[in-house]
Amino acid sequence: MERRLDQDLDRVRQMLLRMGGMVEGMVAKATQSLLDRNNQLSTDVIAGDNDVDHLEIEIDELCHLILGTKQPTAVDLRFLVAVMKINGDLERIGDSAVNIAQSVLQLNDQPPLKPYIDLPHLSQLVQDMVRKSLDAFVRRDARLATEVCQSDDAVDGLYKQLFRELLTYMMEDPKTVSRALHLLLISRNMERIADHATNIAEDVIYYVEGRDIRHSSGLSEEAARKAV
Amino acid sequence: MERRLDQDLDRVRQMLLRMGGMVEGMVAKATQSLLDRNNQLSTDVIAGDNDVDHLEIEIDELCHLILGTKQPTAVDLRFLVAVMKINGDLERIGDSAVNIAQSVLQLNDQPPLKPYIDLPHLSQLVQDMVRKSLDAFVRRDARLATEVCQSDDAVDGLYKQLFRELLTYMMEDPKTVSRALHLLLISRNMERIADHATNIAEDVIYYVEGRDIRHSSGLSEEAARKAV
Repeated sequence: MERRLDQDLDRVRQMLLRMGGMVEGMVAKATQSLLDRNNQLSTDVIAGDNDVDHLEIEIDELCHLILGTKQPTAVDLRFLVAVMKINGDLERIGDSAVNIAQSVLQLNDQPPLKPYIDLPHLSQLVQDMVRKSLDAFVRRDARLATEVCQSDDAVDGLYKQLFRELLTYMMEDPKTVSRALHLLLISRNMERIADHATNIAEDVIYYVEGRDIRHSSGLSEEAARKAV
Repeated sequence: MERRLDQDLDRVRQMLLRMGGMVEGMVAKATQSLLDRNNQLSTDVIAGDNDVDHLEIEIDELCHLILGTKQPTAVDLRFLVAVMKINGDLERIGDSAVNIAQSVLQLNDQPPLKPYIDLPHLSQLVQDMVRKSLDAFVRRDARLATEVCQSDDAVDGLYKQLFRELLTYMMEDPKTVSRALHLLLISRNMERIADHATNIAEDVIYYVEGRDIRHSSGLSEEAARKAV
């Protein structure tokens, strides 16, 4: 039975990593679609969201099944709770990538407003955050997770700078309004993806350090496990 | 021991409802702040977010503690998982209310762009969705939860209409850009709150009907409970 539980947990882990790879790819593709003015890439991103939604449900179902029919220890419980939370954040990263792709399709129809410099930089930053937060999860690396949380400030700074710049465009030339607004929505979605990566990193810290079960119960992890 | 578990579960439920009341109040206050041009209300909303964040952690900790030290049945497990997910959505509704309040503070500094008619309507719609989704949770009412999911279309429609209208303002008169943009961000945050209410309603359906544990395991709920 214990062997079987380990296999189930490993399957959950693999599925979550597959999900992570999928949404990371969506963000990269949506960005590339803008830079190359290639609509097909954005169309792919939008079409791919269904697979992400299905995988989210599959992962949730497997976690529920394990919770309901096996006897996970306190550590495994924390793992499963972390997986379900990370799963939700990954699905929302997929949604943000779709929002970006939809704006890109609008932008690719019009002449470029300006050379894209900060936006690919922002995209790279947030993709790194997503990948690192998942690496931290796999390696149970709370230090790496903390690094991810710290990167969020750089993203916020870059987003604010882009916001101001795009606002100036809109105020100075009404012809730029629609394009600048789509670029602004894209930046906003990037910033949201960074927030989700930060949530994931926080869940990793919680899972690795298991702080709150111990803090609130006064029980050691060992005692909590025995009490199950 | 069983008595104690019931008490714990009831405490979790009360805490979650308190959280729901808090974030609902934040959305209402932020909207009122815009209509009355009363900055104090927005300042209150922003200051209140800390309490919401703390309550989120408290609820999560209690759920973890119960998961790790009691022996919840399959039904109680589904309840706890639902609580943790709803908790996350409520916290994000609080974040959206803060975003709205921040935009309101910017808007109240400038002459009103136009009389606010659709925006309070949108706000009322999303507040109703949040309240109904929590009512559905308390009453284990999957039908009411389904109603919430259906309201999301009306919200999306209203949001798109506002978006087009505000875009037109911006294109026709550069002096309106900053105000129209803040109104657009407010509408966008309202639309996101409706998405969170929809997530909550979906979690309620999942919790009440317990569909996926049964579908994926082939076990009846009773059999799953015995297997724990």
